[in-house]
Amino acid sequence: MAEGGEVRNKQVLLKDYISGFPKESDLYISTDKAICLKVPEGSNGVLVKNLYLSCDPYMRLLMRKIEGPSVFTSFSPGSVITGYGVAKVLDSGHPNFKKGDLVWGTTGWEEYSLITAPNSLFKIEHTDVPLSYYTGILASGAVGQLVGQFAKLMGCYVVGSAGSKEKVDLLKNKFRFDEAFNYKEEHDLDAALKRYCPEGIDIYFENVGGKMLDAVLLNMRNLGRIAVCGQISQYNLDEPEGVKNLMCLVYKRVRMEGLRVFDYFPEYSKFLDIVLPSIREGKITYVEDIAEGLESGPAALIGLFSGRNVGKQLVVVARE
Amino acid sequence: MAEGGEVRNKQVLLKDYISGFPKESDLYISTDKAICLKVPEGSNGVLVKNLYLSCDPYMRLLMRKIEGPSVFTSFSPGSVITGYGVAKVLDSGHPNFKKGDLVWGTTGWEEYSLITAPNSLFKIEHTDVPLSYYTGILASGAVGQLVGQFAKLMGCYVVGSAGSKEKVDLLKNKFRFDEAFNYKEEHDLDAALKRYCPEGIDIYFENVGGKMLDAVLLNMRNLGRIAVCGQISQYNLDEPEGVKNLMCLVYKRVRMEGLRVFDYFPEYSKFLDIVLPSIREGKITYVEDIAEGLESGPAALIGLFSGRNVGKQLVVVARE
Repeated sequence: MAEGGEVRNKQVLLKDYISGFPKESDLYISTDKAICLKVPEGSNGVLVKNLYLSCDPYMRLLMRKIEGPSVFTSFSPGSVITGYGVAKVLDSGHPNFKKGDLVWGTTGWEEYSLITAPNSLFKIEHTDVPLSYYTGILASGAVGQLVGQFAKLMGCYVVGSAGSKEKVDLLKNKFRFDEAFNYKEEHDLDAALKRYCPEGIDIYFENVGGKMLDAVLLNMRNLGRIAVCGQISQYNLDEPEGVKNLMCLVYKRVRMEGLRVFDYFPEYSKFLDIVLPSIREGKITYVEDIAEGLESGPAALIGLFSGRNVGKQLVVVARE
Repeated sequence: MAEGGEVRNKQVLLKDYISGFPKESDLYISTDKAICLKVPEGSNGVLVKNLYLSCDPYMRLLMRKIEGPSVFTSFSPGSVITGYGVAKVLDSGHPNFKKGDLVWGTTGWEEYSLITAPNSLFKIEHTDVPLSYYTGILASGAVGQLVGQFAKLMGCYVVGSAGSKEKVDLLKNKFRFDEAFNYKEEHDLDAALKRYCPEGIDIYFENVGGKMLDAVLLNMRNLGRIAVCGQISQYNLDEPEGVKNLMCLVYKRVRMEGLRVFDYFPEYSKFLDIVLPSIREGKITYVEDIAEGLESGPAALIGLFSGRNVGKQLVVVARE
């Protein structure tokens, strides 16, 4: 194809709003659309070639119709889905970006995207680490493995929970968590937590919700803290499970606080200053589960909810 | 009776551990026990005559068998129940208290109590306000009416929720809340909150739990705060209702934090410095629902859970 010409644009689209557990067939691949590889005259958009796409649990929340005002906008049936990704700028009408720049931020699950309002796009300055890391460790996603390692660096005793023996081994042997257990093999999560955290839990990083949160609440220590990042166990339910042990917040004066990555974007360079050296020096280990090709996108995304991925799940659309 | 002699001691006792909604007959009055009105030789306890007893929702939690370690200790079947009260010292082996002192703190639901470890007993220094206030506004209890008034003094727009038309009138006309509604008449609490707080809720003082908390979570504003003091709607349930909307903590980065009055005892004199002038100047209105005589104790306490009380419920054992 000639640069700037129209090309077929392979895309991953949502078939229809879903409820319950998502299936691969809820998404489909299409090459019906063509895209011009130039930004329109007078636009301050950015035209990118997508390289790596991030698979994130929150994307399930956008696959249902969101009623009323929300921080999220649903995907549209028949339209391309969106998420975090790493891309290369092919053309730019925006002063912050120029052709050849590598960027990360919100993009489409397609070969090329025209990003008309690039306010959540960030230029990648450091390329001595794998580019794919900007879908994960250097952006967002696959949080648990990192939270545990950051906590270890800060001197915490770290206990992880995962859904298979393989992952438990990874947490203990590769990430050097002090302990880890397979929550699918524990009939009594409260008992499991008492076994692994006999003195109770000072800090819980919440990404699970439901029964796990209820068990954790019973095991929090006085003045403990719960950072609430997500609740993956709830995203496929039409109605969330109820959390019953909130009185533990009172008994133990626990603080529970939600966070969103967007709020911390202004501190991104500070984050890089801490994390990049840790990666270069091998103090932080990062495991990726890489699916090849946009066609493998639906299976990779859906696999998150059965825990098929080991490490950060991403999709390679192109390597450069 | 001669001072220092043995006297019959009327008591309110727990019949047996209960589940579900408490009944008056779960408590009983007895005068079987006698008490010596002197502290035992060598003890550093305090012997008090009880004047006012505070009826508090948390007491329901002590009427069931609490398994495992807990911040609370259950009442014992066949034993006197305990709670906050105002009392007069008749005899003291403790250097901080002397005969004639007025005190507030944890005491028994009985005419006379021997308090063997008076570490949660406080001397009353200011007696130009009603003594009964030390079971409530000047100690703990009937929190909602005060939280709303303190919030008004700090310039907040205050919306209250109560369980009868009479109480709603009280909140609006006597306590000068900006708005109040009867939650028993609202089929859709979410809609009610949207009507009364169209711009959302910045601060929620949580004393209800269950469905109310779930509706509040939907209506919190970004970076809002929830102080969790109690969850009265849950105390009579064998298993708490589940709270389903905790993902709102993430969407809106809400902080939810439990508190216990004990943690703030070291700041008690600072609290008095603020509150006593407000009471004297009439800036704070305080409503009490006073039951006469220890015999009326069981009904007064049980009445909390049907909302029979209007204002702070207390029991007068003796006036001096």
